[in-house]
Amino acid sequence: MRSGQARSEAVLETLLTPASGAVSNRLEEAMRYSVLGGGKRLRPVLLYAVGRALGSDEDATGRAALDAAAAALELVHAYSLVHDDLPAMDDDDLRRGRPTVHRAFDEATAILAGDALLTLAFEVMADTGHVRTPALVRTLAEASGRRGMVAGQALDLEAVGQFREVEALSRMHAYKTGALIRAAVRLGGLVAAEEQDSRLAALDRYAAAIGLAFQIQDDILDVTGDTVTLGKTAGADAARDKPTYPSLLGLEGARKRAGQLLDEALDALAPLGEAAAPLAVLARYMIERDH
Amino acid sequence: MRSGQARSEAVLETLLTPASGAVSNRLEEAMRYSVLGGGKRLRPVLLYAVGRALGSDEDATGRAALDAAAAALELVHAYSLVHDDLPAMDDDDLRRGRPTVHRAFDEATAILAGDALLTLAFEVMADTGHVRTPALVRTLAEASGRRGMVAGQALDLEAVGQFREVEALSRMHAYKTGALIRAAVRLGGLVAAEEQDSRLAALDRYAAAIGLAFQIQDDILDVTGDTVTLGKTAGADAARDKPTYPSLLGLEGARKRAGQLLDEALDALAPLGEAAAPLAVLARYMIERDH
Repeated sequence: MRSGQARSEAVLETLLTPASGAVSNRLEEAMRYSVLGGGKRLRPVLLYAVGRALGSDEDATGRAALDAAAAALELVHAYSLVHDDLPAMDDDDLRRGRPTVHRAFDEATAILAGDALLTLAFEVMADTGHVRTPALVRTLAEASGRRGMVAGQALDLEAVGQFREVEALSRMHAYKTGALIRAAVRLGGLVAAEEQDSRLAALDRYAAAIGLAFQIQDDILDVTGDTVTLGKTAGADAARDKPTYPSLLGLEGARKRAGQLLDEALDALAPLGEAAAPLAVLARYMIERDH
Repeated sequence: MRSGQARSEAVLETLLTPASGAVSNRLEEAMRYSVLGGGKRLRPVLLYAVGRALGSDEDATGRAALDAAAAALELVHAYSLVHDDLPAMDDDDLRRGRPTVHRAFDEATAILAGDALLTLAFEVMADTGHVRTPALVRTLAEASGRRGMVAGQALDLEAVGQFREVEALSRMHAYKTGALIRAAVRLGGLVAAEEQDSRLAALDRYAAAIGLAFQIQDDILDVTGDTVTLGKTAGADAARDKPTYPSLLGLEGARKRAGQLLDEALDALAPLGEAAAPLAVLARYMIERDH
């Protein structure tokens, strides 16, 4: 896990290093602040683990494509946090233990930095040099947009004080956070294999399960964690009257559901054999982490 | 010009038609409102004209790639207007003769609709089926991001009440509106020719000149036009104390500068011969239009 984090961090730092080509220094400073301020780098870690499991991390083309996809995923993830934190959205002051971007800079800069990060993700993805570059770009775009992550955020906003069904909550999370986690796993797979490869279907079942488990653990931590360990405001969901797994299922019910999803994820990995062992470790981490 | 507008309109309508796959109807409704509410479709018109001049509009692959690029350009353009109109940015109430997206819907929906439109642009671009798809994606991303359109918007925000030099104003516009107009011309060229083709360099000189001429005419219309004809609030620049070409050069000086740029654009077209005649017509339109 640490090696995937460090590798992804290095790629992102190179991409966002202050360069002579900068047009607006303030914009690029806000982009660096958004991306390089820590973060678990969960999506790159997953992608690299899939790459290793499928053997695409062993040649230069594969490695370069994995690096590009890992960076692109984090750029999309970072932009989504910047925009979600805006006053018109979740109105958050704290992220990764520091002021949110619109607090540290200003609202307009936060909007533009998010826009530029999203755009940069596709610029990076276009330059993989990989034979399946169009599929890589399409996979990232589909997971991020109107039928993916952005749709999830729209459902989330519509839901405040609204639905109270576990099914609807899971559906929202499948888009809001699940789509990009599935994209991480799929992109790692696409670097190694054709779109029709049966291993990609197995990996997608794994990704869908851990994506939801990750979110349930997030909801649990919002109740049981503290602001310092989380790096974001604890209890924020409850304060906003947002439906969560613990509020619908109780804390124990939520933990049980996460455990079931872990079992589903491990089952899905079975066809991949021994090579998938690191992916099983990551699945466990999803529901055992404390931040 | 009309045929390019109609063709681009039809592609956009198909892309944005309410579909059974919609996740958030409100989000998709805001996307349609943003894109299908009129607009000159200038970038598609330019792209199609370049495609015809270079002969790429004659086979099915070329036509499909031109259609995808035309739609992607309009999606990027539309998203940029939605975000630029936000209260934290230009705070505009009127666009294309109708309430801006955050007025017709709400601010959060406007932010998300913009994000989804930008993402959709790359999804569309990934699916051209063209052999140079990676270059097409990269060209659009570079023109739209931190060293392109978004950078120009950042410079524009930094400039309110600040610089008063024509050079700095031109630099800002070269990014804010110029980059995407150049991308339109370059994408049209890339569908037909390799990146190193000398016709692309000639077309880029043309595009840089008309991009700036277009903006000067925009500034002139902000002074001489009326809100109904423009479809947006006349006099908005002056009210905001933004530097413009008429404020720096006077109305006649601005007109003269636009005329010089038209000459530069026509000169640049010379190596392309008779095939480029429609591009000359478009250049004239840029500085003769009344809205």
